[in-house]
Amino acid sequence: MQPFTTILNTGTGFLEKAQNHLTRTLTSMKGQYRDVKAYAEMLKKEDTLIYEVYENINMPKLPGELYHGSSIVHPGKVGDEFFMTKGHFHQVLETAEVYYCVHGQGFMMMETPEGEWAAEELKPGIVLYVPPRWAHRSINVGRDDLITFFVYPGDAGHDYGTIEVKGFRKLIVEQSGKPAIVDNPRWLAK
Amino acid sequence: MQPFTTILNTGTGFLEKAQNHLTRTLTSMKGQYRDVKAYAEMLKKEDTLIYEVYENINMPKLPGELYHGSSIVHPGKVGDEFFMTKGHFHQVLETAEVYYCVHGQGFMMMETPEGEWAAEELKPGIVLYVPPRWAHRSINVGRDDLITFFVYPGDAGHDYGTIEVKGFRKLIVEQSGKPAIVDNPRWLAK
Repeated sequence: MQPFTTILNTGTGFLEKAQNHLTRTLTSMKGQYRDVKAYAEMLKKEDTLIYEVYENINMPKLPGELYHGSSIVHPGKVGDEFFMTKGHFHQVLETAEVYYCVHGQGFMMMETPEGEWAAEELKPGIVLYVPPRWAHRSINVGRDDLITFFVYPGDAGHDYGTIEVKGFRKLIVEQSGKPAIVDNPRWLAK
Repeated sequence: MQPFTTILNTGTGFLEKAQNHLTRTLTSMKGQYRDVKAYAEMLKKEDTLIYEVYENINMPKLPGELYHGSSIVHPGKVGDEFFMTKGHFHQVLETAEVYYCVHGQGFMMMETPEGEWAAEELKPGIVLYVPPRWAHRSINVGRDDLITFFVYPGDAGHDYGTIEVKGFRKLIVEQSGKPAIVDNPRWLAK
């Protein structure tokens, strides 16, 4: 394989020449938001764009390769809960991910199958190490796009299903105009 | 392992809370610069700082982990050849590296054991994929620091010895005030 470049616009998150661009709307977040009524009402009006990913993923699915790209979580809320990504474990659990925040304000919500959880702040300049075994979800708590650059091993894969069924233990909602970490009432322990 | 953050200053390259900081001076670049006389004269005056690396490398040496950090190549020349890193293959050849340039102007010089070479421009916003098997060296052709953020697999390791003995096929020197890619007269084919 030949070396190749893409170009990240830190203001918009657009990764010029990226191999793939995916978009996730409200529909794809079904069952994830605490306020089911607010979700349904919002969806009735429009299948709002929640987040986008530009990614370079055409390399072999091997541990020595590095898939990478940019993630843009748009600002907004469903009820009082902030816009966020679906969140996932890696299919190969023993693989890490590095995030570098270039724009916006948010959190990475993380948890392990063993019951630990952690939330780390994301703001420009923050480099976050998500170790192997930690599921992760970006949450935008600001008024502008939350933009991160990410890198993970080529063999990692995505397990979205576990989170779709269980949810994350913790949610981030707006309370008195500030982000607050609260228990997810619908989280399934098993 | 718990998630952790470090903070990248894109103006200086300083990675706050990094696990390690290494510095390379002129001494460590012995035999790499084309102009041996200019090298010796420069060293007589001062063992000049050429580049620095802030790195997070305390994770297990496993393929699923991601070592990462920032690299700062200071501006300058030895004779007409620009300041650069030592350059290396990975010990585990089949491992890639991702570079994201946040400051400055430069090139990544690359080559494979099979005889291919490539030079890619580095400037703010450029995301460079160095595929498995490609040795790589950052070269600062600007007047300011060249700063990149990098990520590579935890088991990759560094093979500096091959480049120390063979050199790179190509060098970047200043010709008529501009960077020019030229053959390395001391490059060893074997």
